[in-house]
Amino acid sequence: MIITLKKETPQQEIDNIIAQLEANGFKVVDMVKDDIHLLGILGETSFLEEQNIGANNWVAAVTRITAPYKKASREFHPQDTIVSVDGIKIGGKEKIVIIGGPCSVENKEQIMTIAEAVALAGAKMLRGGAYKYRTSPYAFQGLESEGITYLVEAKKKYKLPIVSEITTVDKIEEFVANVDVIQVGARNMQNIELLKALGKTNKPIILKRGLSSTVEEWLMSAEYILAEGNSQVILCERGIRTFEKATRNTLDLSVIPLIKKLSHLPIIVDPSHATGHWELVESMSLAAIAAGADGLLIEVHHNPLNALSDGQQSLKLKNFATLIENGRKIARVIGRDI
Amino acid sequence: MIITLKKETPQQEIDNIIAQLEANGFKVVDMVKDDIHLLGILGETSFLEEQNIGANNWVAAVTRITAPYKKASREFHPQDTIVSVDGIKIGGKEKIVIIGGPCSVENKEQIMTIAEAVALAGAKMLRGGAYKYRTSPYAFQGLESEGITYLVEAKKKYKLPIVSEITTVDKIEEFVANVDVIQVGARNMQNIELLKALGKTNKPIILKRGLSSTVEEWLMSAEYILAEGNSQVILCERGIRTFEKATRNTLDLSVIPLIKKLSHLPIIVDPSHATGHWELVESMSLAAIAAGADGLLIEVHHNPLNALSDGQQSLKLKNFATLIENGRKIARVIGRDI
Amino acid sequence: MIITLKKETPQQEIDNIIAQLEANGFKVVDMVKDDIHLLGILGETSFLEEQNIGANNWVAAVTRITAPYKKASREFHPQDTIVSVDGIKIGGKEKIVIIGGPCSVENKEQIMTIAEAVALAGAKMLRGGAYKYRTSPYAFQGLESEGITYLVEAKKKYKLPIVSEITTVDKIEEFVANVDVIQVGARNMQNIELLKALGKTNKPIILKRGLSSTVEEWLMSAEYILAEGNSQVILCERGIRTFEKATRNTLDLSVIPLIKKLSHLPIIVDPSHATGHWELVESMSLAAIAAGADGLLIEVHHNPLNALSDGQQSLKLKNFATLIENGRKIARVIGRDI
Amino acid sequence: MIITLKKETPQQEIDNIIAQLEANGFKVVDMVKDDIHLLGILGETSFLEEQNIGANNWVAAVTRITAPYKKASREFHPQDTIVSVDGIKIGGKEKIVIIGGPCSVENKEQIMTIAEAVALAGAKMLRGGAYKYRTSPYAFQGLESEGITYLVEAKKKYKLPIVSEITTVDKIEEFVANVDVIQVGARNMQNIELLKALGKTNKPIILKRGLSSTVEEWLMSAEYILAEGNSQVILCERGIRTFEKATRNTLDLSVIPLIKKLSHLPIIVDPSHATGHWELVESMSLAAIAAGADGLLIEVHHNPLNALSDGQQSLKLKNFATLIENGRKIARVIGRDI
Repeated sequence: MIITLKKETPQQEIDNIIAQLEANGFKVVDMVKDDIHLLGILGETSFLEEQNIGANNWVAAVTRITAPYKKASREFHPQDTIVSVDGIKIGGKEKIVIIGGPCSVENKEQIMTIAEAVALAGAKMLRGGAYKYRTSPYAFQGLESEGITYLVEAKKKYKLPIVSEITTVDKIEEFVANVDVIQVGARNMQNIELLKALGKTNKPIILKRGLSSTVEEWLMSAEYILAEGNSQVILCERGIRTFEKATRNTLDLSVIPLIKKLSHLPIIVDPSHATGHWELVESMSLAAIAAGADGLLIEVHHNPLNALSDGQQSLKLKNFATLIENGRKIARVIGRDI
Repeated sequence: MIITLKKETPQQEIDNIIAQLEANGFKVVDMVKDDIHLLGILGETSFLEEQNIGANNWVAAVTRITAPYKKASREFHPQDTIVSVDGIKIGGKEKIVIIGGPCSVENKEQIMTIAEAVALAGAKMLRGGAYKYRTSPYAFQGLESEGITYLVEAKKKYKLPIVSEITTVDKIEEFVANVDVIQVGARNMQNIELLKALGKTNKPIILKRGLSSTVEEWLMSAEYILAEGNSQVILCERGIRTFEKATRNTLDLSVIPLIKKLSHLPIIVDPSHATGHWELVESMSLAAIAAGADGLLIEVHHNPLNALSDGQQSLKLKNFATLIENGRKIARVIGRDI
Repeated sequence: MIITLKKETPQQEIDNIIAQLEANGFKVVDMVKDDIHLLGILGETSFLEEQNIGANNWVAAVTRITAPYKKASREFHPQDTIVSVDGIKIGGKEKIVIIGGPCSVENKEQIMTIAEAVALAGAKMLRGGAYKYRTSPYAFQGLESEGITYLVEAKKKYKLPIVSEITTVDKIEEFVANVDVIQVGARNMQNIELLKALGKTNKPIILKRGLSSTVEEWLMSAEYILAEGNSQVILCERGIRTFEKATRNTLDLSVIPLIKKLSHLPIIVDPSHATGHWELVESMSLAAIAAGADGLLIEVHHNPLNALSDGQQSLKLKNFATLIENGRKIARVIGRDI
Repeated sequence: MIITLKKETPQQEIDNIIAQLEANGFKVVDMVKDDIHLLGILGETSFLEEQNIGANNWVAAVTRITAPYKKASREFHPQDTIVSVDGIKIGGKEKIVIIGGPCSVENKEQIMTIAEAVALAGAKMLRGGAYKYRTSPYAFQGLESEGITYLVEAKKKYKLPIVSEITTVDKIEEFVANVDVIQVGARNMQNIELLKALGKTNKPIILKRGLSSTVEEWLMSAEYILAEGNSQVILCERGIRTFEKATRNTLDLSVIPLIKKLSHLPIIVDPSHATGHWELVESMSLAAIAAGADGLLIEVHHNPLNALSDGQQSLKLKNFATLIENGRKIARVIGRDI
């Protein structure tokens, strides 16, 4: 970390800053030439906060020269992390993993119908929400444990590992016992207690990017999980909030190559939530594959008009099968497969 | 709710949509003239979701004519809600309530020093974080229960009700027992489980606006608390995330008159987190009062340079006293007081 | 257009609104049932503004049921527009057109060197800025007419039609005489006078999306050009401004299928300005092709470190050739070519 | 400017960077300790661009220690600039100047009626658009020269200097001859040619902030005007574009104290365009005054429902008078007046 001081900073102030940092265990190098003082801080600066150092009026700028995350950074861990779910591998140069299923598990018949079609189409995992995170207290809130039970039945019948979203710490036991990949939703990306608790499990975690989270904050949230010992983290881009109203959110595909550069973790894409319109989902899926995504998380419903949630963004079963077929061709061009 | 259908919608499709809505208990009025079909939906439409209705390709637009929130809306509840904390009233035409204190409780001496100054300056409540929500797992995470204990001691000594942020459901008992106003941070604005649990307490709640939350979503989150029976909700604007980098966030003061129009709930402002720079805090506090805010939540520290968190945005004790003095003059001009 | 009135609107107010609209030549249909009044406005409503109608306090909502743009809309013009530049076709199912070149023309040698490499790599047009739009008055402002002259020389030698950005109306003659495709930069997307003047030429126009422009505003700007008689408009997505700081802007690829749905105009993508980092350009180019883009506009420089502008986002010549090679494979998978 | 190099940068690369900078006339100081190289660049670095220096892969960060604007910065020019319009002073500790009038001049009678009321209410200048900047080519585009003529008549009769927006360079002569303050709209904030041309006049300029412009970019645009010799620049905040849909834009009042700190130029606020709802205009006006604004630009109409543009955000004449009355009280509290 480099602290740049203002030109006219009095020597007494410089000495104070240095003394304070040294008292906290850092080694400080004062580089000065022609009245510019730059303090290089050596040591474990991930504990330091730019905000606090900047509180000093003599500080012009605080610049990190290493990322504030460690375990999530590629610098620290150059090889790609490959997450493994019942033998299905995600990340590196592995096949692109397609995860399909409804926004919400609505009843047993619905999830069974969709699971069968999803498996037939070539998806490798089944997604389905049992505990739903709804903006309105009056909207359908999910089948909860009953939904998990149906997912487990679908899993047994169709041999599809299951992905479901957790919303509170007190459900961790249930999820660890029943679910193969635990999803953390965008609104929980900075639910620190949940991240810490998931870091103590040995389950793969899908960590969605928050609606207005920077890439750095997203990797810091991954760091919370990794720091507790769970290295099985899959990042998931699902669109960020912008001024554009024609799509539900703005899908930021540039984070795929960016994450690959900054981190070793796998990254998948959810084009359904990002766009909010099923008509845009196939194009965005192909684009995500071309950009290097390690997987896709797609909403599929056999009857979107009657879906209890998010019908507008769900693909019909037939369109989902076409998407996988077309996606496979793109994947092969870039040296991968589905 | 009004559903506008596309011009060329076949009668069969119109009949289907109507049948489906009626099967769900709604009364549907089909208004048609010159080929435009508008379906007026009567009944409790707060259960319906625009997203799902829009999944039908024949639907051109879905327009709500009543707000999706009920208990939070001024239409439902025309009189101002006045929240009462140990006799201190917030909302309506009551005095503007100033809440001051450090970002984090760091040790007993610190909170006692600040509490004394805060009380002397004329603040009516003391704030202090015990459980901290940090972006980095390596940053100071708060004193936790020890911090709550110090706050309680400060409260006893200086007669200041205390405000502190809760981050997980499992701490509710501790907060209900010790804290006077429970704060829900911006990152938890849509932590539904937490909102529901707080709705079952009888404690006043400060609900901060999420970093990228719309006013409608914010009121929907308040609705979660109100729907469970707790009517003591205070909204708190603390800045939204935009492209501007010169301030930490962008303080959106226009929500003050907007919330007053849409809702009966009190609204306060946190200019410290919003701006991230103590030099901007006084101006924004005066502006908030002029705009009609019912209170201010301000970070104060006796030694910002050594603060364990958010030093850059904390006011020194003397500046805090000046702010209250100047704020009082503005308050009196608009027919209120501090 | 549908005007939804508030429930309690007095009849006198309803009559006034209708009278006013009829006085302006519209036919108004008053649909009423159970106290809800909906006014359907028939006629050329693209002249009406939601803002003004909404000024009436009794108006609850104003909903358009047809797009405010006409000539740019696919409804009005179902077949794809194919823009033709010296026999090179852009749009529809035509080959994907790659346009490469430096941010700024710096001197004759530079543009000749790059033009040669760009042609060899398989690009179909050459781009280069002569009049530069710089944030700072102290930055390099372009070679102006001298730059245009060098571009023309490069065009003659390497048979590459040239694309360059215009910044003011008074240069239109020079551009029409020398340049094959005239580019309107993001900051000029709503420079109405410039759009109108370009609408009177017969040159193909590349219209970049503004940094914070919605898709609707973008199509309205295209409408300004089309309305004057020039139908040769190519839209160009170049990233929007968001809170993310790790990339220069956020590339919004979902606009590709969206524009294809809403409009008949071709759409190309500029991944260089969008990401601001050459390392992200290839991935985003492949993604854009997979998503259905009709072309790419890419910054290329033989020596990015010495570039007078935007070096950080320019590809080296070799990387540009690889990009085209890989892009061609993706293009063929989706039934097109480069 | 400080360039921080990556830890492992080879000496040869460091030498190259230094040589290149020195070849461009800069003095470079290489500060090194424990493998960290920091290059301090001395000289007129406002000519250098971070983007280009960052193109070098060995560069970790580029940090400016002085602002990229000179003439607009308070460092360069510590005293407040006071702009004078026919004896009316704007800036510093002068009275707060209220500018009122319609969005568009619609006809002679309209502007005369409004001008009279605006003068009576205590406003010091009259605003009115003659050349309008409309999103749609089908919306009312203004009366153009006829509108300017009516403004001039209103000025003569009511002794109110007039403010009107210019949209193209070729109208400068007309504006210099007739208008007292020339306004540059948000969409033209980076219309460089227009800024340069206005910099050559001796007229006061109101420079509105672009919809997605940072404070730094805004000051750089002011710099373009100042650099040509015109020092009479008034900045105007009019809301930025965010995800919030309940207001037209998000008014960013924190820029008032921020601009006062960074620059010596006066700053005024336009709450009408920012909020888009007349009901929010008074509160935001009082807030702007409390925050230290030097003036207000407010849309007023004698009959908003029939306004040809922006009726929804226009105050009625009576409300405008009340606003000034209440604003004056706030102004006096903070030691100013209206």
